[in-house]
Amino acid sequence: MTHLLALSELSVQQIEGLLERAQAIQDHGVAPRITEPAFVANLFFEPSTRTRFSFEVAEKRLGFNVLNVEEATSSVQKGETLYDTLRLLEEIGVRAAVIRHFEAGFYKDLRDRLTLSIINAGDGDGHHPSQTLLDLLTMRQEFQQFQGLTVAMIGDLRHSRVARSNAEVLHRLGVKVILTGPKAWQDPSFPGSYVSIDEAVETADVVNLLRIQKERHREMDGFTPEAYHQAYGLTLKRAQAMKPEAIIMHPAPFNRDVEIASELVESKQSRIFKQMHNGVFMRMAIMEWACQGRPNANNQRIELTV
Amino acid sequence: MTHLLALSELSVQQIEGLLERAQAIQDHGVAPRITEPAFVANLFFEPSTRTRFSFEVAEKRLGFNVLNVEEATSSVQKGETLYDTLRLLEEIGVRAAVIRHFEAGFYKDLRDRLTLSIINAGDGDGHHPSQTLLDLLTMRQEFQQFQGLTVAMIGDLRHSRVARSNAEVLHRLGVKVILTGPKAWQDPSFPGSYVSIDEAVETADVVNLLRIQKERHREMDGFTPEAYHQAYGLTLKRAQAMKPEAIIMHPAPFNRDVEIASELVESKQSRIFKQMHNGVFMRMAIMEWACQGRPNANNQRIELTV
Amino acid sequence: MTHLLALSELSVQQIEGLLERAQAIQDHGVAPRITEPAFVANLFFEPSTRTRFSFEVAEKRLGFNVLNVEEATSSVQKGETLYDTLRLLEEIGVRAAVIRHFEAGFYKDLRDRLTLSIINAGDGDGHHPSQTLLDLLTMRQEFQQFQGLTVAMIGDLRHSRVARSNAEVLHRLGVKVILTGPKAWQDPSFPGSYVSIDEAVETADVVNLLRIQKERHREMDGFTPEAYHQAYGLTLKRAQAMKPEAIIMHPAPFNRDVEIASELVESKQSRIFKQMHNGVFMRMAIMEWACQGRPNANNQRIELTV
Repeated sequence: MTHLLALSELSVQQIEGLLERAQAIQDHGVAPRITEPAFVANLFFEPSTRTRFSFEVAEKRLGFNVLNVEEATSSVQKGETLYDTLRLLEEIGVRAAVIRHFEAGFYKDLRDRLTLSIINAGDGDGHHPSQTLLDLLTMRQEFQQFQGLTVAMIGDLRHSRVARSNAEVLHRLGVKVILTGPKAWQDPSFPGSYVSIDEAVETADVVNLLRIQKERHREMDGFTPEAYHQAYGLTLKRAQAMKPEAIIMHPAPFNRDVEIASELVESKQSRIFKQMHNGVFMRMAIMEWACQGRPNANNQRIELTV
Repeated sequence: MTHLLALSELSVQQIEGLLERAQAIQDHGVAPRITEPAFVANLFFEPSTRTRFSFEVAEKRLGFNVLNVEEATSSVQKGETLYDTLRLLEEIGVRAAVIRHFEAGFYKDLRDRLTLSIINAGDGDGHHPSQTLLDLLTMRQEFQQFQGLTVAMIGDLRHSRVARSNAEVLHRLGVKVILTGPKAWQDPSFPGSYVSIDEAVETADVVNLLRIQKERHREMDGFTPEAYHQAYGLTLKRAQAMKPEAIIMHPAPFNRDVEIASELVESKQSRIFKQMHNGVFMRMAIMEWACQGRPNANNQRIELTV
Repeated sequence: MTHLLALSELSVQQIEGLLERAQAIQDHGVAPRITEPAFVANLFFEPSTRTRFSFEVAEKRLGFNVLNVEEATSSVQKGETLYDTLRLLEEIGVRAAVIRHFEAGFYKDLRDRLTLSIINAGDGDGHHPSQTLLDLLTMRQEFQQFQGLTVAMIGDLRHSRVARSNAEVLHRLGVKVILTGPKAWQDPSFPGSYVSIDEAVETADVVNLLRIQKERHREMDGFTPEAYHQAYGLTLKRAQAMKPEAIIMHPAPFNRDVEIASELVESKQSRIFKQMHNGVFMRMAIMEWACQGRPNANNQRIELTV
């Protein structure tokens, strides 16, 4: 089996291969179909619309049968361990499980004990590799190469699994990462240097806003939404200081007029909905790869190896 | 895109076209299939079995891939606006969204901002066009034409989106609408005149009972279920006074022995389950239309236009 | 229609026919497909992962379209009776309904009033026929015949619908059933004789552990998990006293280190995950049978008879 747990486990070459395959799927509009009925499962232990349905569309476009396992109605309530649930899924024929879990590193003691592939769809404040990959795909479409780019990551760095995944990989790809946000949410473990919000917006090629994780820290550490918007949000005024070719990104869901002025969400420089569009193709490439052990280079029909 | 939001926006000719297409699907037992993989989504922000699964069957019989978005497990919990959720669905490839929402007119500021089709599956105490259309289909099968019919709408008029939709359209189709129900639930905005419950039952061609919306007004304004049944329900005794060719309808779910005597639910004059049966064909015609911009006249394969 | 409600309603010959068909599906790896689009529904009024998804995989492998009806989001909340919900499903084209319900015998006043097939997926503390059949399939693979086997059922007999179903059928198949467990959970209505836990483990060909139904009796009648494990669990020490050819079974989900020592779950003698594997094939045979009225002897395409 091939798991996708954290991009830190993949080489630059492997990452490039996945991005190329996603781009090819998008460009040629043809998805290779599965050669025989095969099942995948989505297990979301935290709410999600974007990631969950993006994966479901990707899976169905590849021809997989999809099982949606929801905590509220499952045996997880009866105290079953995640390992035992996944072993069950293996036994009934599931090839890959896309899992969002509230616990960072939930996969650590599972990875070597299963034959199905685990796709990490977000683990606590850990990683979110499919989001990082679709962010990279979006940047790649815009700038063709990563080397020499400056990406500003703005906001709730400490609680954002997207920020963590992105910063690590961008650094490896030769991108200059700059960081900004409230003191309480800074995180010294990130590669990259802290700058002021205005310097970040003015110098970045990519202004990557991060969602305020209201559900993780109920109080915004003293900020009202308005105060946050003025202090660290992309206001209309700040956006005017962006470089002409620079783009706005956000993993969404976004809080309008908090991280970003509502009018900017669909502005000319925004790629926020483009990110969602790219997500399906990226996840098709990921699901192919998980079931084959390598990116699908020649657009052939998927021969399942698990 | 073609939305179906309220039948008041459709001409009589458009309505007739949809009814004819639904009848043709039912008669010829053949559904045109989608020419390529296409996705639709069902978003139900209020509980539903009938409407939700009737649409799901209709969608799958047409060959659509179906996404079921449920509030409890989605990003709506994170405060995302409905517009942003629908834009997401557009970006991942969804052609049409069937939406039930607790807010009347939820679609008003969405309709001109989206490329996907919105099918209103019930908005607060506003409209419920697919229910109205399947009601019309049921009457049409029985009486061939609408002109000259008398339809009695009985019960909770004020809170019933079905009553509101039906009364408006029936009036336009040349149907005489008569109304009856408790004073507190009468609504002067309806076309049609108020009569006594007994006159309504005795003179109507269609005795259209309305569900008591227990979840909308907890107390039944002073009525016990038994008292309501005696005052405004279709009792066994009242049913005997119906015209021989008259039929009983109810949008369901019904409260047995409240709106209707339990023994009458599957009586010879009842079309209540026939309405449910018709619902699938009606919704197949609606989904075709939403994705084509017109009823599918020649039973051809659907070429998606969105 | 053909219902599967309790195995006590099936002859030994019918049971053997279903087991043979399940084995044939497993051996020949080919599933006959439905000749035209057909719908089945899964209604789970209690949480389930194993049974629910095992049925869903079985249904989809047979080519059925699947509707998943969940209590939380359905009209059951509006007070609709189960009969009315099932009549609705009939009207929209559903051929068979797989139902888990908290009420034992929920199907009693439904069975003669419906044209769709009801598959009982567990009714309160009543029956669980598909689980019993997959247990039988697992034993049959191991021992070829039932006559002469000794099966020990250990633990929460009183609250286990699996135990009740299994004991009755095993008795009819010529199996010697022995029982053990805490006094408070014994049930005099079971066929079979009570022995000590150690005698049960030492003499059985099949050590069939039962799940402690924590959700049915909050307190374990005075036992701590550790105390239960020592008194009635399959400890490592007890397992060493098993006959060399004997196997361990458990309907799952299991409580590790309560009913069974965690190390034994995937031990050489355990067939616990094999049971889950067999479940899909068994349920494919059941769904074929429900829609045809007999086991599918010649692996032909399914002609739906309902």
